[in-house]
Amino acid sequence: MKKARVAYAGAIHQACESNGRLKLTDGRIVDEQDVVWLPPLEPRTVFALGLNYADHAKELAFKAPEEPLAFLKGPNTFIGHRGQTRRPLDAAYMHYECELAVVIGKTAKAVKKEEAFEYVCGYTIANDYAIRDYLENYYRPNLKVKNRDTCTPIGPWLVDARDIPDPMNLTIKTYINGKLTQEGNTNDMIFGIAELIEYFSSFMTLSPGDVILTGTPEGLANTAVGDEITTEIEGIGKLVSTIVSDDIFTKGQEPSHIKINN
Amino acid sequence: MKKARVAYAGAIHQACESNGRLKLTDGRIVDEQDVVWLPPLEPRTVFALGLNYADHAKELAFKAPEEPLAFLKGPNTFIGHRGQTRRPLDAAYMHYECELAVVIGKTAKAVKKEEAFEYVCGYTIANDYAIRDYLENYYRPNLKVKNRDTCTPIGPWLVDARDIPDPMNLTIKTYINGKLTQEGNTNDMIFGIAELIEYFSSFMTLSPGDVILTGTPEGLANTAVGDEITTEIEGIGKLVSTIVSDDIFTKGQEPSHIKINN
Repeated sequence: MKKARVAYAGAIHQACESNGRLKLTDGRIVDEQDVVWLPPLEPRTVFALGLNYADHAKELAFKAPEEPLAFLKGPNTFIGHRGQTRRPLDAAYMHYECELAVVIGKTAKAVKKEEAFEYVCGYTIANDYAIRDYLENYYRPNLKVKNRDTCTPIGPWLVDARDIPDPMNLTIKTYINGKLTQEGNTNDMIFGIAELIEYFSSFMTLSPGDVILTGTPEGLANTAVGDEITTEIEGIGKLVSTIVSDDIFTKGQEPSHIKINN
Repeated sequence: MKKARVAYAGAIHQACESNGRLKLTDGRIVDEQDVVWLPPLEPRTVFALGLNYADHAKELAFKAPEEPLAFLKGPNTFIGHRGQTRRPLDAAYMHYECELAVVIGKTAKAVKKEEAFEYVCGYTIANDYAIRDYLENYYRPNLKVKNRDTCTPIGPWLVDARDIPDPMNLTIKTYINGKLTQEGNTNDMIFGIAELIEYFSSFMTLSPGDVILTGTPEGLANTAVGDEITTEIEGIGKLVSTIVSDDIFTKGQEPSHIKINN
């Protein structure tokens, strides 16, 4: 079972897939172009991991961490599928980061890794864009790098955990304008899903609705205004976002070359 | 006007002060010992500042930051006035940090410092405990240092901004078991409230209910199980928390020497 959260005809609905269209919980079947996709859940505490794939750490010329390099993300950074991500005017490097997002389903405290998956209710995809220009060093994936408005598309689907029997073996791909630029597998994580839940729950309580963004494999590439970025995870779906210039809103302009969804 | 949020007789209420007692919004007047104090608001995005007082940075032997050293805090770390803060069993150094908490009242994006106070609706007090043992370096006020459950008491009152005409000139004090151990003034902040709002809103949207914990002055001291810590800010109030051992809950014990509020 996979569910989306969409805005349609004046309200927010849960929706599932129905022969390439969307079936709302009230029974209506609508075209996906006619809805605004929202994040599939309203994120509560969102954890993100830096350098959680060994190949990616190497790509950035950092040593792999000995303990999860984790930080929190605020709610305003999230947007839904087919949303617009704003690229800062002064950024030379804005990289996509396709990541498996793990959604917590019940309260977890001092959970051992052997039981960790009992606390997972589902999975989705996040594109945890990083503005590399602002990264000071290994230890500081700071607000300006990782918490800008619109810079974390998430979705489209929240997929039930029972439908993903082996989340530690999923292919991860990213495409820029349809061209494959990143390819990896969740089995390359340094700290796997179970270890991360054990780690966080050892000193904090994880609550239902909390989300862990588990990091990205190697294959970074720069993105430009107008690019359509597709992040795909096997069995979870494809999440699309479009890069727009950070000043289109302040200028009151609409980018003419891309479809506006909201 | 100052308001609290308390649990009493099966429900959560807003409350104001009435001759040393609490007046609930439904008109009942109750003793403050008979309620459970909750955080005065349900925090949304909570920003915290590292080393935002020059004397405190010096005390920790760090250079003062050239740009705000900010990080986010998750919801499970907050507790209300007269709550219990759990001290990790393996921590040698658990320091209180009395901080002025600034509450955002309306959506702020690209706000200049000259207009910043228009976006502030009120103030409260936070005690942003730090478990120093886990601090790796200057750049990483990480989750284990700053996001443990119960380690950020906040309250008791949310005080209207209009009642605090000069928030950049307030005395800050902390007492351990009634003995004064920290004393400073908000006028020693490196980045003042207006500068912080300008900074955050330059690359993120600040939303109503967001909170900025503005850092702490010098005067750190270690805390021990059983200590009653009182953090006080001129005109805002006094926030009390008690240190308990992290294992009292897992052991199912109640600390006999302190009053249990929840």
